[in-house]
Amino acid sequence: MDLLFENPSNPRGQGAKNRSFVLSMLIASLFVKGRLSLAPRTTRHEIRLRLMNYCSACGAPVSKKIPAGDNLPRFVCDTCLAIHYHNPKIVAGCIPEWDGHILLCRRAIEPKSGLWTFPAGFMEIGESTEQAAVRETLEEAQAQVEGISLFAVLSLPHIGQAYLVFRGPMRSLDFGVGEESLDVQLFSLAAIPWGEIAFPVVKEALRRYVDDMTRGVFQVHVATLPDRLP
Amino acid sequence: MDLLFENPSNPRGQGAKNRSFVLSMLIASLFVKGRLSLAPRTTRHEIRLRLMNYCSACGAPVSKKIPAGDNLPRFVCDTCLAIHYHNPKIVAGCIPEWDGHILLCRRAIEPKSGLWTFPAGFMEIGESTEQAAVRETLEEAQAQVEGISLFAVLSLPHIGQAYLVFRGPMRSLDFGVGEESLDVQLFSLAAIPWGEIAFPVVKEALRRYVDDMTRGVFQVHVATLPDRLP
Repeated sequence: MDLLFENPSNPRGQGAKNRSFVLSMLIASLFVKGRLSLAPRTTRHEIRLRLMNYCSACGAPVSKKIPAGDNLPRFVCDTCLAIHYHNPKIVAGCIPEWDGHILLCRRAIEPKSGLWTFPAGFMEIGESTEQAAVRETLEEAQAQVEGISLFAVLSLPHIGQAYLVFRGPMRSLDFGVGEESLDVQLFSLAAIPWGEIAFPVVKEALRRYVDDMTRGVFQVHVATLPDRLP
Repeated sequence: MDLLFENPSNPRGQGAKNRSFVLSMLIASLFVKGRLSLAPRTTRHEIRLRLMNYCSACGAPVSKKIPAGDNLPRFVCDTCLAIHYHNPKIVAGCIPEWDGHILLCRRAIEPKSGLWTFPAGFMEIGESTEQAAVRETLEEAQAQVEGISLFAVLSLPHIGQAYLVFRGPMRSLDFGVGEESLDVQLFSLAAIPWGEIAFPVVKEALRRYVDDMTRGVFQVHVATLPDRLP
């Protein structure tokens, strides 16, 4: 559907009625073929789950069904009966602090390459949430933070992620451009590039950070972000 | 190795030297056969990952290798090159409160069937951390909680889990035995069955809860639990 309307500047003048009819028929045929529906847009999570065609244990095909004693559909192996669960992932991040400034990275990778974020990434098995936040800060901004505190737990149900955002002082002014960054800079709170922030969840965390910093009182924020922020 | 020493009261008197020699040879032979090593014990995580033999996208065999631009080994499909990531899971739990008492469930399922816990379970895709905690409380204790607050983030790196524990008041005295519980009871803090708590992480959360309640000051605890608590 995005493809049909990808050029919003397409002029609707002469012969627009005829084109409307053709377009309507085309859209109707897509509904019939099941290529278009009124169901919510496919989320990244659903895209990821399309990777689940075969059992990773025995290689036989899987089906989506509700296992006995469960109440949600899971991918179950038709042959060895293994149940393959998919659960939300933790994104651990940190807002590194230095003398009233915070350290942000300009992303060098998709999605949102060229836009700004605080260091954050998927937590790995074998580390704690704090260790993941410290590691991401070192990898993306080549900066060391110490004595970090939990600042926010922000759930993104529509993409199966929970952000655990920490904040804490940098050990020194040593920082640099990590492999996944184009640029790393210290910003005063007044200079945060609000129009160029990579993700709504990053913007929300930074907004709450600036609020708390302005009031001089930090709390642990627990919140849920809708699919699309206004 | 645990099996060899499972009876610590085994007397070491007459003929102990001979038995020591036989035992040493037995242990040495296990090393040679690769049945025993000085490497860390196999974790549940490693056991789970043994399920990763085939690519869930195309069904071809996978190999463990470090993908380009990564620094950790992942399961990569030898044929379609899909990378299969495994990340920690969130366990969301809640300590339901009623008039100085808390609600605990006696587990009806393995592991640790018969022992006590607060309601907790794996967070699902499509819900927030708070929703997961409220749902688990309803499922396991048939109790409704409202206005819950984050109480603890406890990482268990050795099994790739992070517990997000909330606490909050029950709406009413309505509660009951959910499908995964044998019994559900309100306990005063003095009556918590410390000797029959299901998991070290549950005991640690309850210990911190009682401490905070005793001092009358609640904070959000962030901590990491070692493989084995003393």
